[in-house]
This record gives sequence, structure tokens and C-alpha cells, in this order.
Amino acid sequence: MFPGASDEREGGDVADEFGRANANFVVVGAPLDVSTTFQPGTRFGPRRIRTFAETFDDYDRRTDQYFSDLGVVDHGDVRAWDDVEAYLEWLEGTVRDVVWDEAVPLVLGGEHTVSLPAVRAVEPEVFVCLDAHLDLREAYDGNPLSHACVTRRILEDVDTVEEAIILGARTGSEEEWDRAEGDDVTVVPPEDVAEFSVADRLEGRDAYLSVDIDGADPAYAPGTGTMEPFGLEPREMREVVREVASQATGFDVVEVNDRDDGQAASLAGKLLREFVFSHAASR
Amino acid sequence: MFPGASDEREGGDVADEFGRANANFVVVGAPLDVSTTFQPGTRFGPRRIRTFAETFDDYDRRTDQYFSDLGVVDHGDVRAWDDVEAYLEWLEGTVRDVVWDEAVPLVLGGEHTVSLPAVRAVEPEVFVCLDAHLDLREAYDGNPLSHACVTRRILEDVDTVEEAIILGARTGSEEEWDRAEGDDVTVVPPEDVAEFSVADRLEGRDAYLSVDIDGADPAYAPGTGTMEPFGLEPREMREVVREVASQATGFDVVEVNDRDDGQAASLAGKLLREFVFSHAASR
Amino acid sequence: MFPGASDEREGGDVADEFGRANANFVVVGAPLDVSTTFQPGTRFGPRRIRTFAETFDDYDRRTDQYFSDLGVVDHGDVRAWDDVEAYLEWLEGTVRDVVWDEAVPLVLGGEHTVSLPAVRAVEPEVFVCLDAHLDLREAYDGNPLSHACVTRRILEDVDTVEEAIILGARTGSEEEWDRAEGDDVTVVPPEDVAEFSVADRLEGRDAYLSVDIDGADPAYAPGTGTMEPFGLEPREMREVVREVASQATGFDVVEVNDRDDGQAASLAGKLLREFVFSHAASR
Amino acid sequence: MFPGASDEREGGDVADEFGRANANFVVVGAPLDVSTTFQPGTRFGPRRIRTFAETFDDYDRRTDQYFSDLGVVDHGDVRAWDDVEAYLEWLEGTVRDVVWDEAVPLVLGGEHTVSLPAVRAVEPEVFVCLDAHLDLREAYDGNPLSHACVTRRILEDVDTVEEAIILGARTGSEEEWDRAEGDDVTVVPPEDVAEFSVADRLEGRDAYLSVDIDGADPAYAPGTGTMEPFGLEPREMREVVREVASQATGFDVVEVNDRDDGQAASLAGKLLREFVFSHAASR
Amino acid sequence: MFPGASDEREGGDVADEFGRANANFVVVGAPLDVSTTFQPGTRFGPRRIRTFAETFDDYDRRTDQYFSDLGVVDHGDVRAWDDVEAYLEWLEGTVRDVVWDEAVPLVLGGEHTVSLPAVRAVEPEVFVCLDAHLDLREAYDGNPLSHACVTRRILEDVDTVEEAIILGARTGSEEEWDRAEGDDVTVVPPEDVAEFSVADRLEGRDAYLSVDIDGADPAYAPGTGTMEPFGLEPREMREVVREVASQATGFDVVEVNDRDDGQAASLAGKLLREFVFSHAASR
Amino acid sequence: MFPGASDEREGGDVADEFGRANANFVVVGAPLDVSTTFQPGTRFGPRRIRTFAETFDDYDRRTDQYFSDLGVVDHGDVRAWDDVEAYLEWLEGTVRDVVWDEAVPLVLGGEHTVSLPAVRAVEPEVFVCLDAHLDLREAYDGNPLSHACVTRRILEDVDTVEEAIILGARTGSEEEWDRAEGDDVTVVPPEDVAEFSVADRLEGRDAYLSVDIDGADPAYAPGTGTMEPFGLEPREMREVVREVASQATGFDVVEVNDRDDGQAASLAGKLLREFVFSHAASR
Ligand SMILES: [Mn+2]
Ligand SMILES: [Mn+2]
Ligand SMILES: [Mn+2]
Ligand SMILES: [Mn+2]
Ligand SMILES: [Mn+2]
Ligand SMILES: [Mn+2]
Ligand SMILES: [Mn+2]
Ligand SMILES: [Mn+2]
Ligand SMILES: [Mn+2]
Ligand SMILES: [Mn+2]
Ligand SMILES: [Mn+2]
Ligand SMILES: [Mn+2]
Repeated sequence: MFPGASDEREGGDVADEFGRANANFVVVGAPLDVSTTFQPGTRFGPRRIRTFAETFDDYDRRTDQYFSDLGVVDHGDVRAWDDVEAYLEWLEGTVRDVVWDEAVPLVLGGEHTVSLPAVRAVEPEVFVCLDAHLDLREAYDGNPLSHACVTRRILEDVDTVEEAIILGARTGSEEEWDRAEGDDVTVVPPEDVAEFSVADRLEGRDAYLSVDIDGADPAYAPGTGTMEPFGLEPREMREVVREVASQATGFDVVEVNDRDDGQAASLAGKLLREFVFSHAASR
Repeated sequence: MFPGASDEREGGDVADEFGRANANFVVVGAPLDVSTTFQPGTRFGPRRIRTFAETFDDYDRRTDQYFSDLGVVDHGDVRAWDDVEAYLEWLEGTVRDVVWDEAVPLVLGGEHTVSLPAVRAVEPEVFVCLDAHLDLREAYDGNPLSHACVTRRILEDVDTVEEAIILGARTGSEEEWDRAEGDDVTVVPPEDVAEFSVADRLEGRDAYLSVDIDGADPAYAPGTGTMEPFGLEPREMREVVREVASQATGFDVVEVNDRDDGQAASLAGKLLREFVFSHAASR
Repeated sequence: MFPGASDEREGGDVADEFGRANANFVVVGAPLDVSTTFQPGTRFGPRRIRTFAETFDDYDRRTDQYFSDLGVVDHGDVRAWDDVEAYLEWLEGTVRDVVWDEAVPLVLGGEHTVSLPAVRAVEPEVFVCLDAHLDLREAYDGNPLSHACVTRRILEDVDTVEEAIILGARTGSEEEWDRAEGDDVTVVPPEDVAEFSVADRLEGRDAYLSVDIDGADPAYAPGTGTMEPFGLEPREMREVVREVASQATGFDVVEVNDRDDGQAASLAGKLLREFVFSHAASR
Repeated sequence: MFPGASDEREGGDVADEFGRANANFVVVGAPLDVSTTFQPGTRFGPRRIRTFAETFDDYDRRTDQYFSDLGVVDHGDVRAWDDVEAYLEWLEGTVRDVVWDEAVPLVLGGEHTVSLPAVRAVEPEVFVCLDAHLDLREAYDGNPLSHACVTRRILEDVDTVEEAIILGARTGSEEEWDRAEGDDVTVVPPEDVAEFSVADRLEGRDAYLSVDIDGADPAYAPGTGTMEPFGLEPREMREVVREVASQATGFDVVEVNDRDDGQAASLAGKLLREFVFSHAASR
Repeated sequence: MFPGASDEREGGDVADEFGRANANFVVVGAPLDVSTTFQPGTRFGPRRIRTFAETFDDYDRRTDQYFSDLGVVDHGDVRAWDDVEAYLEWLEGTVRDVVWDEAVPLVLGGEHTVSLPAVRAVEPEVFVCLDAHLDLREAYDGNPLSHACVTRRILEDVDTVEEAIILGARTGSEEEWDRAEGDDVTVVPPEDVAEFSVADRLEGRDAYLSVDIDGADPAYAPGTGTMEPFGLEPREMREVVREVASQATGFDVVEVNDRDDGQAASLAGKLLREFVFSHAASR
Repeated sequence: MFPGASDEREGGDVADEFGRANANFVVVGAPLDVSTTFQPGTRFGPRRIRTFAETFDDYDRRTDQYFSDLGVVDHGDVRAWDDVEAYLEWLEGTVRDVVWDEAVPLVLGGEHTVSLPAVRAVEPEVFVCLDAHLDLREAYDGNPLSHACVTRRILEDVDTVEEAIILGARTGSEEEWDRAEGDDVTVVPPEDVAEFSVADRLEGRDAYLSVDIDGADPAYAPGTGTMEPFGLEPREMREVVREVASQATGFDVVEVNDRDDGQAASLAGKLLREFVFSHAASR
């Protein structure tokens, strides 16, 4: 269970107050780990993020709120299996239930692919993404559901999505960079993220915020499948989270694995909390 | 390149002597790592086995042979991609080429699933397997190509295979244990392996020998996806390898990952060498 | 949640069948980690044991039972705090509740000290223990609640306990060895455990079985606070578990930490399951 | 022994020159590791700091001094035991001896709690602290000697201390943040540390400088019990050390554990040396 | 093989196009690991750099080039042995062959000592170096071929070299700092590297660029033998690489070991690629 | 300092009783780590052995002795440098001093090469060795002082040595196996060690006992440079130590590195203690 969240399955007072029906936010673990590039282990992402969040204070001074007061419920993990397409559909259903209950889904990856069903369920106008990679491939090794294609899939498959804003991207194939020049894509290189105002760019539209932890420089998040140097600093990522939170109706943090000393998971948990505090404070 | 093997791609004298055409054994790396159970990392198996074999002496006193004299060629890895079925077919082609060149394939996994195409290519009469698990499921999480089904697939899909002998097995589902009572399956629990004579059981038939490293007790091979305590000792495994080698026309060692300090890879490399020395000495 | 167990907090059918009231076994995590000797990390023991048990098959062939059919409920962890005495009292209450519900407590340590409150709650006649250490000190560094004193405390403080049988012990202070010569203590050195019949020694009395994972040789359980070479083999430990299970009304496995590649946790989870299968089969 | 320091126990010339009686600085290891929050291992802090300092050059160009010329003596570790209160008293005595010999104590933690006895012995006017946390709790889990309470304890229990300046703090309970608004506390968030002049704030008063390594961003010091993202950069910490050193009569670096690849210990050792070089140069 | 490079030994089309004779760049692994200071493991540097480069995209947007189009050939490793002097001579021959073929050598260390033979072979006018250390010792522990002496050796032994520019240096012995004041040495401390223009300083002279990965702050490259805090940020290093590349006729990246989670190797591989892209684009 | 030993440098009562002059045993750390084969890290061997011995009880029941009563003094480490020949000479001098003081040297490696100077100083009649390797090469990569040649060097260079008994050896070059057939060499393969009586073979002659930790199966000692499966069990090694101890005038344990979870160091420390207890008890 994410520290400070209520366990969806629990009975008693907690459930009365913030049981699924009244939840403001619902954590959904999505430990998918199948796209075959480099270092595996994103299946342990949800578990590690929850674990390394145990040390964080419940209270947030900036917004003067207690995390445990904000109505966060933890649904637990939607265990993955080998048929990715079926899994994504099932996951979409789970997230859609959250949306129907008027709560904000907080998805813990798992590989980036899990953003696709979450965005399908949330149906935002803009997909905002912190990522080292463009993830704009048509397919990777013939697989259109690879994590390297997720932003492309979202642009193509989710009707409500008008635009993708990719912050911190610093690498891609030629095809991806060309695709990135389309009107519906904005790429902000790491060097320019501090100066860029996402809020301005959103112009009040509904957003979904996806944090691929490899957007951070590997120093801050070595526990990820494909380290890409020259990345974002955590405070730059936090600023983006704060700016987008009030307009976001869905959130995920993905690509955390267990191959470091907890840095990636620690940062991931902190950004999720920052999202929750900022979103709640903006109401 | 496996230490002591020739690189298939190299030119010059080595190729003249043991180029693919004249090879006696061909190492094929098969870093498949997709079945979604527990600890991933078998994609690093071939690399680790080659690395930890670097310290072994070229010479073997028991058989008075040099490994580098035995005509072992390393084909390199057949890189995996997301479409498992297509990958297995491609891998089968690669191994079939080895067989057609009258060499013995030595497959480095990767997950156990890779034994299926290798056995298809080799077409043995008996499938001998060191494994903690029965691997006799019809499907696992709906996937008939999971590593947990490989022995069942081999029994069902490879016409030449009359029988499977599974040594060291100590766990399985009820369905698997029931299937194991079929006439075409022999299960030897770890406690009885030292007493069991595989050679007798083979009665001169052609065999394929598959070493799932988790057959060993976790103390000897912690770097594997699903540790299963109460397992085999390395000398018991070596004895099986020695006994089967003379009658085996194919060999693999699978399920080694990178999540230990090298114990699993070291044992895997040693068993492969033991196979080569014994097979060569029996000619 | 221990794999195959029901979550105590969950509603619905599972609870109907094996809710706390009808449970046969109740898992209680006791992540105490304060005695200041060498390698810390037993606080992660319960988590790791549950994690590494995920790969085990639900079905047990020997006893022809499914773990998930045996009425095991997981109470979750009783989180530790700095006042050890108060914590142990609280833990005793938790375990006593289990006993009153006529279920067998299965405690996951945490340091060995947690056996004391569990034994107090269970009130057995004999304390059977697999351990490298005698744990018979009057106090360690002035602390009578150190894990190095737990067997002494149990002998002195729990009125029902007539005797302690310590299997696999190979080290202790002179004071401990002298105490071990008392009529109420039997020490079986690792070399003799295979020959020793605990069942005979129990003569039908009620027992509590405590598995200090350091009873195993460090090769099989390096992830423990004080490795002690020349230890037991897992099959010897399993044999003891099988023999004692039918007469045991309480069980724990302790001293597992997170400083290895999962070997200690894997063995611990397996021995717990062996206990459950054997105890259930004997009814 | 800290590299470049003399061993207090050694005889001969070194002792003649910088034996305890003439030492300018005395290193005291305080491997306390009992407060039960998250990742343990601070007991290995002193050992790791000494080890990772072995690679540093003896000479410092900025101050044109040799570390080994500055009269640093290493007292070794004051081994911890279970009675924290008694331990802290003993430690206080050890540090008081250093002070009476007119040397500056350099304490190597161990958990932050060890600053309390050190400050008691040094009796400064101001407690300057680099820390991610406020450590201003009245008690944590009922324990007033938890590392999470150390700054509060120092403010309350040490008469000479007029004020605490906490640099880099970014989290705390509501109670702590409220306490931090007292006249005797100054909190400088990480973002403002570069601009803040501690020297100005000290106005010539005697200070004790405590470096909780978790003040650094986790990228620079992952080996600590409670990682807190969005932290200080090492150069910002160095600047504080340089500014405070001339007015400081006591120093510690705490909360380093063994759960990273040496980054935390390396930074800790460097900051200790920076303190010594700056303090010595200011005389 | 470095990802995107051709294997020198391979036959067929690749060799036709970019075989050794037509290569623009040649990767040479130099896994020397003998200087006896602190953490060993640079022998695994070439292997790790190649491995962690596997995830990088072939295409570079900034220069609009494909790495695999740039004529990079991988010679493999020049395996080290105990006679360092002889090894360096042999390595020099290997690099000289590259130079004679009019290709740019890209040496993968191994300890920094390997720059000496590479510079001897390349015969540049200026030795540009990113390093935490001055490496200007006459000898270290009596060994003039220690990695701590390599820049001194290059200045003294290679006739063509007029000057050494050391960027990011922050430590050295007094002797080294004094030597650094010679007219032929420029030291740029980490704090000033961002402002410093290497291109200006080069004035069109031929350069050799050596990247000692410990020039980076340990947060970005913990996997190196002697971590030295307060170092460079990767973007600062990248800027230097970009500036020098067009004038450099030789390149190396050294001192990467296997004692981290891949951060050092990942950064090293990225800087090598940046060098190649920039050099090629400048033609 | 080895736990239970006195520090040679300390003053006061301890030194009076067991100062160097009256010592019965002297621990000498010899962290040599230069022979270039595979996994480095033996330089950390002495440190790790001392560290992992901290958990062992001072008292030994079998011999009814306290380790701290037996007059063991720790000389500390003889720090290594690059000139191996000079280092070995210096080390020989250190060990010779021990011998002249009529104490038994206990050398902690470091690589196996350090046995050579120790044996030179001790001048035994028989060199008894537990090792996976024959170490009988004339030279390795041209280096006659490689750890792979140490037993050959001892046979050739130390006049008093009449014979080498190598227990647990299971690999070597053809040249080594041929040399092993000489009258002055006895090789006992791992399978036969349990049956072999070293005491009988010694016939009362003076022996030096060298424990290369890789003699153990990798399960028991993965932290060593060249793992060699199919090795000895710790109890078999202990039996050899007990048998030889009474006749041995020198002892070492070598080839322990820091690349495991402490298993190798733990076993090494235990075997050293077993040697001391047995030797002392036999007087
Ligand atoms: Mn992504
Ligand atoms: Mn990404
Ligand atoms: Mn299998
Ligand atoms: Mn298996
Ligand atoms: Mn115990
Ligand atoms: Mn114990
Ligand atoms: Mn603190
Ligand atoms: Mn803190
Ligand atoms: Mn350097
Ligand atoms: Mn350097
Ligand atoms: Mn040896
Ligand atoms: Mn050896």
C-alpha cells in the first residue's frame, strides 16, 4: 500500500471516509515488464516506489496538507501476464472505473506502455510527458505496443488527445524526430525545461501527466531500463509536476526498476506525492 | 565469444581449421527473457556464462583434452525480440543449420523456452532435463510458450521425442504431476538423482540434454528466476552430464540471470564444458 | 501478503471461508531489528520472505494439498518501534489472539527476540529451535531481550516450557555452553542432526518450532545478521520441520535480512510452507 | 584510522608530536544504529567514511596545508550497545575529554542522535546543521532520543545553545514546522542555501557544525537511511562548511550507511577534511 | 563490439564498406587494471561501456547523423598482462596502426595509464584532459607508469606535446600543483570549466582528448577507482568534448569500473559517441 | 584488528601480556592484488576477514579455550605497492620477525602469491595447501610471481620444503598436472579429501598450511577471484585445518575478495580461528 493511502480492500472507518466511492485519488500498480530492451525489472517498480515512500513525512508544509487526508486509496497491483494486449485492456478497465468514480488515477509502472490504457481511460486533451525519449516510434522491433512507441500510440489511438508535450527528451530515431515536428507535438530539450511554462502551453486544457523516470539524469534515477545521460534535475521535474497538477486528471510514474540503491523509486514516490499535494491544493 | 571457442565470424587460420563447416560444436546464445514470472534477467545469461568461463583452464585432465582443440565455434547471440513465436522459429533455423553441418548445438539461455526450437532442430528420441520444475503445464497464464511449459511442448510438438527424463524436479502443479505419471515421463527427485543411472534408462537412444540451472540448489545457483530450495549438488549434475554426453546430439544450459555474484553462470559454464569434454572423449 | 494466504483485511468470499475466525494458520510479520550485533536488516525479513515465496507452486505433491486451501490468513506486520519491551507485549497480544481463535501462529521475524512473545502466547511444553547459536545468555551487552538470549528467556519466563531442544547449534559463550548442560536443554550439533529424531524426544508433548535461519550453512542463507559457517543443509532442516509439525502449535522463522540475493528468504518461505503442509496433513 | 590521522593508541614519534595531549582535532567514531526508521546500516558509517577517504590526497592546495600536519588524532570507535541513554552518556564523556584537551572533536556517525552528547560536551552557542529534516520532534514513536528529535533535544537540553540554524531542510511534521517558527530556529530551504551567509548569521558566536549527509540530494549520497529528493549540491554544503569552520569548536558527519557504492561516505569524508583544513587555516 | 560499430574481424559487406582500411574511427579496448590504488575493476571498463551503450539510439539529431554510418570499427580488446611496460608498447603499436590507416583511435580504458601509448601513437600538439586529478606525479609509490603520473609522462615523453590542458582537476600533491604552474600546463578547476573555451586555447593545434571519468562528480560516475566529490556535470563535459572534437586526432575514456549501477559506463559511452558525432560533423 | 587479537601498537596491560615479544600468533595482512586474472578485489581481503569475524564468539567449546587468551597479536596490514618483487621481500622480512619472536604467523591475503614470502620466512618441511588450483605453473603470462605459480615457486625456491600436498585441486594446465606427478607433489581431488589423512602423510614433519579460499565450492565462498565449481565443503576444510594445526608453524588464508555477501570472508575467518584453537590446544 502506498504510504498514507488507504487500502481499498480494508473495512472499517477508513473505508467509510475514503473508500473507493469517495476517493479523490486511486493508486493502481501496473508492473508490466515485457518490452525487450536492455535492463529488465520494471515489474518491481510499484513495490519499490511504495517501499521507498515509507520514509516521507505525511505532512507537506508548502500546501499545508496531510497526504493521508487527501483521499488517496491504493487499489494494489494489476498483475501482468504474457498477453500484453489483453493486459492493457484489463488495465484500461481498472483505470476507467477510477475515472467513473470521479477520482484521479495514479498509475505506478511498470514500463511506459501502461500510460496508453490509462490515457484511454482518462481521455485528456493534452498528454504531458517527462521523458528522455520521444517514444514516437510506429513500432519497435515490430511491436507497436513497445514502451518506445507509447506517445505515438497515444497520439494516434486516443481521440481526445490533441497534443503531446514531451519535456526533457534528448534522444530518438530519425523517424521519431521527424514525427516530433508535427503540429501536435512539442519537444522541450532538457536544457530548456526550466524556462518553459507548461501551464501557458496548456491554456486551460485537461491534461494527463506521465513521468518516465528516465527523464531525470541517471545520477538521480539510475534504476531504470535505459539510462540516458544529460537529463533533467529533480527540481525541474517537480516544477513541471506542480504546474500541470491542477489541470491534470490522470498521472503516472513509470520505468522504475530495482537495479539501483533506491534513488529512482525515491524520486518517483516524491513526484507522485507532489502531484497529489498540488492537485488537491488547487481545488 | 565462449572462452576457448572460435569466433564464427573471424577469418584466418582458426576458421580454416574449425570454421563453421568443420565445427564439432556450435555455441548459440538465445537471450530470451519474456515469460512474466518473478526475477527477470535471463537476457544476460549468455553474456554472463561466457564471462565467468574466462577463468577456466583450457585443459581437462580427466579426458586429457584441450577445450580449444575440440572444434567449438561460437555463433554469437540470436538477439530476441517481442514476437516470441517468430523468434523461436528463427532460432530453430539457426540451430537446424548447426545440425545440418553435423555439429552439436550448445544453446545458452535465456529462459527455458529456448529448448523447444533447439529440440525441434535436433530431433532426439529422449529429452533429458535437469530442472527444479516439471515444466509440464499446458499453458501458464494462458501462454503455451511460457518457460513453465517447455517440457510439455517438447513432448507434444516434437515427433521424434518418445520420452522426457526430468532429474531434480521438486515442484509442479497438480496437473503437471499428473501428467508426469504418463508413460513418456520419468521424474527423479533430487534425493534420488545420485543413485539413478540415466545411461541405463537411455538404452542407447539419441538424447538432447537440457540443464535448467535452477535444478541446482539455490546455494550453488542463486542467479536464476525462480529459486527452489532442496535442490541438486553440482557434482550430481556433473555426473548426469557425463553420462548423457556420449549419446546427446544437442545441449543447452538455461535460466541463468545476472542477479547473483556469478555462481550460477560459473556452474553453467562448467557444465557446458563438461558436456563438450565428455562428448568429444566418447568419440 | 504471504502468497497463497488470504488477506485478513479483505472482505468478500475469501474472508467468508477463511476469515480470521475460521483460519487454521495466521501469518504475523514481526520486523523487529534492534539488537546491536553486526549486520542489520531483519526489519526487511517479513517483506522478503513474502516476496521470494511468490514463485512457489501452490500445490504440494508429497501431501497432495494446496497451500491456498489450508486456511492461512496473513495478518500483516506488527510494525516495530523503539520500546522493545512494549513492542513484545503488543506482539504477544496479537499472537494470543491467534491462539484464542484456535489457529496456529506463523511468525515472520525480525530478530530472534520475537520468539519470546510468540512462545508466551502459545504456551508449549517444548521449545524446538533450529539455530547456529545457543541463545542462552543471561544478557548480552546488558540487554536481557537481545536476540542472543531468547532461548534462555523462554526457558526462564514461560512456565509451560519444560525443555529446549536446539538443533544445529555450533557456537556460544562458555556461560551458554554450561547452561546448555542443564537437564532442560538438549543441544544437537549440526553433524548429528540428520541422525537425531526430534519426534522421539518430544514424546507427544506440545511443541513450538522456531527456525533461526542462521542454523543453515551461510551458503544457503547468507542474508542473516551473524553468519556462522559449518551449518545445516536445507534438507536436514526440512526433516526437522516435518517431524515437529504435527505436534507444534506455533511456528516462526527469524533472522532473515536483505543482504543477500534472496537465498535466505527463499529457504525461509519454503520451510514455513513445509510446516503448514505437514501440520495440516497430520490432522 | 582516518587516513592522515594518527592512531591515538600508537607509541613512538607520532604520539610525541600529536598524541592526545597535543592533538588539534580528535576523530571519534560513534556507530549508533538503533532508531527504527527505514534503512539501517549507520553502524557501518565510521568504517566506510574512513575507507573511502583513503584515496584523497594528503595535501590541500586552497589552504596550502597537509592533512597529516594538522594534528588530527583518531580515537577509534566508541562501540554502541543497546542502552541508548547510557551509550550517549559514555560518548559525551569521550567527547568532553577531547574538549578538555583543547582539541576539536570530529564525530563520525552513526545516526544523528550522536550529535546530542557531542553538543553537550562542546557547549556551543549556535547549532548549525545541514539536514534534509528538521529533527525538531518532541518524540518519534514515543522515543525522545530518536534521530528525528536531535535538534529539538539540543535546543532544549543544552543550556549554552541559543539557536539552531538548519540548512537544506525540506521536510518535517506540522509540529516540527511550527516549532521551527520559534525565534531560536532558522530554516534555510535547499533552494536558498547558496545565497545564505551563515557567517553573517553567526555574528562571531561559537558554533557546532553537524552534517547529516541526507542534506545532500540522494544522487550525491544515496547511502543514508532516509533519502529525501530535491536536496543540496555538494558544493553548497562545502561552502557552508568553509564559512562555519573558523567559528566551530565541534563537528560531526552522520547518517552515512553502507547501502550505496560509496558516494555518501566519500562526500562525508571530504566534508570532514574541508572542515579541518578551513578551521586550521583560520587560526 | 561497441554498438553501431563494425566488428573488425567480420567478413562480408560491412567490412567492404568500413573494414579497417576505410575506417574513420577505431575502438580499441585497453582493460589495464594494475596500479594499486583503491577500488579495482577498470579491467571491466571496456566491457561495461560497450554494454551500457546498447540502449542508445543510432541516430543523433543535433548533427543529423547515424553512428553506424560514420565508419566506426571495433578492434576489440588488447588484453592486458602483468608486464605493464611491454603491454603499453604493444598497445602503442595497435594504436599506431590505427593512425597509419588514417583513422581516429577511440581507446576504452582501463586505467588512465593507457593514454600514454595512445598519445605516443597519435602525436598531438596538445593533450586535453577531463580529470579530477592532475596526474602530474613523477612517480607514485615508485612507479612512474601509475595512472597518477600519466599526464606528467605524456608531457615529458611525447615530443610533439607542447601543452596539457586539465579540466575539472580538483586535487593533487603539492609537487603536482607546483608542476601545474609550468607554462606547459593549464588547470581549469571544475567551477570554471563552463566558462572556459578550450577551442580558443587550442588555437587550431592538433589535440588528443582524454576523458578520465572521475572528472565527473561521483553522483554521475560512482563506478571509478577514486571518487573525488565536487566535480563536473555531464553537460560541462559534453561541451568540452564538442569543442575539442573537430581538432582532435585521438580520444579515450578511462577509469570506468564495474562498481556502480552503470552510471559511469553510460556516461562514458555517451561522451565517446558525442566525440564521434562532433568530429564527423566537423569534416 | 582481528577480533580477539591485541593490537600490536597498543600500549598498556594488553601489550604487557601479549605484546609482540610474548605473542604466540601474529596476524599479518597482505593485501596484494595485482596478478591480472579475472575478478580483482583481494586487496580488500584482510579488511573483510577481520570484519566478518566480529560476530564470532570468543569462546571455543571443543577445545575449551578463549581466542583472546591465546596470545594473538595483530600486526596490521603490510600495504602493497606496484613493485611486487620488492613487496614480497618486505613482507618476508615482516613474517621472519614473527618467526624470530617464536610466534606463528597468520597471513591474511591478498592473492596467493603472498604465501611465497611467508613460507620463505617459516621454512617448513611440507607445504600443505587447500586450493582449487594446482598453482604449479612455471609462469603465467610471463610472470613467475603470479598467484597461479605460487606452489611451484615454493617447491623450487624454498630449500627446506620437501613436498607440497594440494587438497581439493580440480583444475590446472597440462604442464601443471605433469609437474604434479613429481615425487614432491601430492594432489588430493575434492572427492577424496574427506578420506585422506594429512596427519599420516606428514609423518611428524613441520608444515605450513595455506588456505586458498577457492578450494571451497563457490557456494561457500563466491567472493574470490576465480570461482571453480565442484569444490570442497567447509567441514572437509575444517578437518584438514584441525589435523595439520598441531604440526604447522605458519598459516595463511588467501584469495578472499569483496565481491560476495560475506560468505568467503566469514569462512576464512572461521578457518583461521580453527587453526589457532587447534594449534594452541595441541601444545
Ligand atoms: Mn518513455
Ligand atoms: Mn524513457
Ligand atoms: Mn525449466
Ligand atoms: Mn526451472
Ligand atoms: Mn537465534
Ligand atoms: Mn542464530
Ligand atoms: Mn538528521
Ligand atoms: Mn536527516
Ligand atoms: Mn586520471
Ligand atoms: Mn582521475
Ligand atoms: Mn591458489
Ligand atoms: Mn586457487
